[in-house]
Amino acid sequence: MARRSMREEIVEAGLEQFHAHGYSAAGVKNITDAAGVPKGSFYNHFDSKEALAVVALERYAEGLRLRELADTSVEPLTRLRAHFEFLRDENVRRGITRGCLVGNFSAEVADHSDVIHTAVRNSFRQWAVLIAAALGEARRAGTVRADLDPETTARFVLHAWEGTLLGARADRSAEAFDSFFDLVFGTLLVK
Amino acid sequence: MARRSMREEIVEAGLEQFHAHGYSAAGVKNITDAAGVPKGSFYNHFDSKEALAVVALERYAEGLRLRELADTSVEPLTRLRAHFEFLRDENVRRGITRGCLVGNFSAEVADHSDVIHTAVRNSFRQWAVLIAAALGEARRAGTVRADLDPETTARFVLHAWEGTLLGARADRSAEAFDSFFDLVFGTLLVK
Repeated sequence: MARRSMREEIVEAGLEQFHAHGYSAAGVKNITDAAGVPKGSFYNHFDSKEALAVVALERYAEGLRLRELADTSVEPLTRLRAHFEFLRDENVRRGITRGCLVGNFSAEVADHSDVIHTAVRNSFRQWAVLIAAALGEARRAGTVRADLDPETTARFVLHAWEGTLLGARADRSAEAFDSFFDLVFGTLLVK
Repeated sequence: MARRSMREEIVEAGLEQFHAHGYSAAGVKNITDAAGVPKGSFYNHFDSKEALAVVALERYAEGLRLRELADTSVEPLTRLRAHFEFLRDENVRRGITRGCLVGNFSAEVADHSDVIHTAVRNSFRQWAVLIAAALGEARRAGTVRADLDPETTARFVLHAWEGTLLGARADRSAEAFDSFFDLVFGTLLVK
């Protein structure tokens, strides 16, 4: 297998550093050290840390398994639940640290960087569209409450998920996930 | 009126800097500059930036109007809704920036600092206890769904609120708040 390109090493290390330490705490030097490349090489590939953050966020979003969330061959509530169970399990595997990079960037950087703000907004929107599609499908199939607006509900469920990650990290416990599944799948969506 | 003490100036400036810029981005020098005090004076009052962050978080929590949330002379659903409306209005007044300092610290620092982690966890718990008390009262009064567990629901609603702030900042729009009120007070809690 060919060695990954230097750009690719920087993207992977940037994603790792941003997710583990946050945007401000992850300096370019930390990232190039983690990537095992000279600091000067960074600017051959990226104009700024901001520019790398946007690419790292895209890379992070690829790991959210949105393709599975969009897979209409699976019953909509089943795949919606499986989506959040996958994300929960990933989080538990990481010792309930790091949370969601989209939410973390929203908390830390969205007020300060227009390009990161735009990337965060687009990630949330793309994600919410897929949740809304599943909810719309479920409504047509009569498997969720008929009075739920798919778009509004999708936005709410995604936000509840993001806040659940903050709560789980604050508690260093998976209890917050139980509340999420109980209230969303056991109460809110129930017909 | 007596001039505020130097410690007080540092606490106020720290709260402002942490809330506006995040924990890592707000350096001790930024904080003492904003407070108009010499940098060296910081360590006469605080052992570390972490120690200041804990005090700033306590100060922030005083602004959440938890006393009103606990005021049993007001009908529980009315005061619960008024609580989140107050927080929403504060947020809109700030141009939908900054979000909630408790959530921001959870996103950025809870994994890295045990003392800040503990302070964040305690803030969330204290807040959730008051929401649960209101929900328990409402359940006894028969004004919310009888099958909702007050503690689980309180945790979920608080997390949904925290995620809503992330979504609102990402969208730079109040639409996320509408989804929150619609789904929590118009759907989830409705008898």
